[in-house]
Amino acid sequence: MSHLHSNPLSTPSTPVQVHTEFLSASDAARLVARVGVEACLRQMVQALEADFARWSDFDKTARTAAHSAHGVIELMPVADAQDYAFKYVNGHPINTQHGLPTVMAFGALADVATGTPRFVSELTLTTALRTAATSAMVARRLARPNSRCMALIGNGAQSEFQALAFITLLGVRRLQLFDVDAAATAKLQRNLAPFAAQWNVDVVVVPSVAAAVQGGDIITTVTADKRNATILTADMLAPGMHLNAVGGDCPGKTELAAEVLRRSSVFVEYEPQTRMEGELQQMPADFAVTEFWRVLAGQAAGRVSDAQITLFDSVGFALEDYSALRTMQALGREAGLLSQIELVPALTDPKDVFGLLRQAADGEQRILKKVA
Amino acid sequence: MSHLHSNPLSTPSTPVQVHTEFLSASDAARLVARVGVEACLRQMVQALEADFARWSDFDKTARTAAHSAHGVIELMPVADAQDYAFKYVNGHPINTQHGLPTVMAFGALADVATGTPRFVSELTLTTALRTAATSAMVARRLARPNSRCMALIGNGAQSEFQALAFITLLGVRRLQLFDVDAAATAKLQRNLAPFAAQWNVDVVVVPSVAAAVQGGDIITTVTADKRNATILTADMLAPGMHLNAVGGDCPGKTELAAEVLRRSSVFVEYEPQTRMEGELQQMPADFAVTEFWRVLAGQAAGRVSDAQITLFDSVGFALEDYSALRTMQALGREAGLLSQIELVPALTDPKDVFGLLRQAADGEQRILKKVA
Repeated sequence: MSHLHSNPLSTPSTPVQVHTEFLSASDAARLVARVGVEACLRQMVQALEADFARWSDFDKTARTAAHSAHGVIELMPVADAQDYAFKYVNGHPINTQHGLPTVMAFGALADVATGTPRFVSELTLTTALRTAATSAMVARRLARPNSRCMALIGNGAQSEFQALAFITLLGVRRLQLFDVDAAATAKLQRNLAPFAAQWNVDVVVVPSVAAAVQGGDIITTVTADKRNATILTADMLAPGMHLNAVGGDCPGKTELAAEVLRRSSVFVEYEPQTRMEGELQQMPADFAVTEFWRVLAGQAAGRVSDAQITLFDSVGFALEDYSALRTMQALGREAGLLSQIELVPALTDPKDVFGLLRQAADGEQRILKKVA
Repeated sequence: MSHLHSNPLSTPSTPVQVHTEFLSASDAARLVARVGVEACLRQMVQALEADFARWSDFDKTARTAAHSAHGVIELMPVADAQDYAFKYVNGHPINTQHGLPTVMAFGALADVATGTPRFVSELTLTTALRTAATSAMVARRLARPNSRCMALIGNGAQSEFQALAFITLLGVRRLQLFDVDAAATAKLQRNLAPFAAQWNVDVVVVPSVAAAVQGGDIITTVTADKRNATILTADMLAPGMHLNAVGGDCPGKTELAAEVLRRSSVFVEYEPQTRMEGELQQMPADFAVTEFWRVLAGQAAGRVSDAQITLFDSVGFALEDYSALRTMQALGREAGLLSQIELVPALTDPKDVFGLLRQAADGEQRILKKVA
């Protein structure tokens, strides 16, 4: 009954009001600024690990995607026996030309028992955090423990979050930055400056992908073009590298040469979705990969040698948004930053949706009388 | 550019603010009460006919459904070249025991060109209206033109809307009501009383399904149990009837005997979805049906004789929610009943999502200084 949030004493004259909590875009920014990016990332990784560890509890589907000339709009649902979560998210690299983010997102948590929406949230900032938190969760299991140098290729909206996740949760102490857009790199450098000072990190801007990869223990690619690009080629690889490939995430959008995959042990979130959307779309259907939850659960090996090249073909899976939503809801409640949104009508008699109109009409009459 | 809503004069110091309109549950009730149910239904039918007539413009998929013991939660997306729409909706017949509606819904409209969410709305009341409007749109083409008597079997949350749609848009002047729950029927009768008086409609309560069907020109079934029920059997049918079968709308939830379908010409919204969810789930894969848009477009025959039995196997399709969302948005704007919801962060530099945290931290600092 605790999930139903109904009033057992309610009579026909007491409407049951559904309370849906809301975290707005600016309150989410306020929340993360107050709690701290590091603490948010840490809590999100905890939630992610807890949820990935009980993988079989979840009803999973590949997201639905509506593709258009310049982008994609997706819905990403997931559910366990208690909670249902979904995210709306777009991907439009062209948006930045109009002052809009490439990725915008929002979503909700609902009760599986009744379908009641309990929490609606911005997910633009939250998606940036959860994507970085997921990369960190995976790299903690797959990168060599002494990884200190990371190449960061693609210095757009996601790059600061990746950098901070790897600095604070993996111990990265040198970043080698590259982007075809020098302004993006300059922005990343500016944003990282206080953290670089605090954590004693060398942040170096380099003139090419090859220079960024050179000497890297971890190679993070987060480019945004919606096309089959070849950012990384096999000749750039060195033994022991961990590749954190984040940018290739929908059909026709990849970042790696096929040979890079063939030279690596490839780990994925949810295999059926990654086959369609990830770097994996380039490979034959029987190309072997490991779902990462199996490593977490001790069912599959992660890294087995210092020379092995590991590759996380990240596309973003709905379960991560569930973990992120519940983290932000909990943090938002603690911080008193959640408001309410009136999504569901309060019904005196649940079979009498029509009664809402009578109530509303009565209300309007009262207003008219007051005005008169 | 008009769809982008960005400021072409914006400089790096002017954040681009996305404006997302919001229609809350109580404002939706206020809106319908003010505009009038009849006018809302009429405008929704106009929008539905316009959208169904350009069926091939839309990117269509069957909805995704998460089934649990007592219900289902669904996401219903649809898009054309300009607009993307989706609805979140549940179906939990058990909810009424806890004072909650069986069906709760909300959804959004977004720009395909950029992915920007433009409108978020309650869709509980709106879904009730659009389902009835869809039934009316279809019956106007399929029922005999002189249909005056309608059986209304299932007198729950959807029933008033069906009754009013058929009274005002089809010319129904006699309603024969039946429900296993006498309280539901009494509620329906109370709610209909003023309209029955205004439109000169006989509203008659009958003791059985068979009595409701007897003499009916149109048979509307809107029962809610999530099981394979047999509300209508073939022996109840009479030549010329139009069956408006609304309640059977997910796997394992049907209302009609298979023989009823075999004796009828069956019309559906979107065939791939209805095969899974409608009365059609009982029939072999090659059982012939007609997608209704083809009747509207003049590509298929509707009713061809006065003796024919026509059957609309209604399950509810995402396109109807798009029509409903744009109708409510337009009506809400006219009535000044839309508010704003801050779903998307305002970015000074669209590649600098991280900058939000700096802005938010600065804001918190200013607040702390003020307090100090």
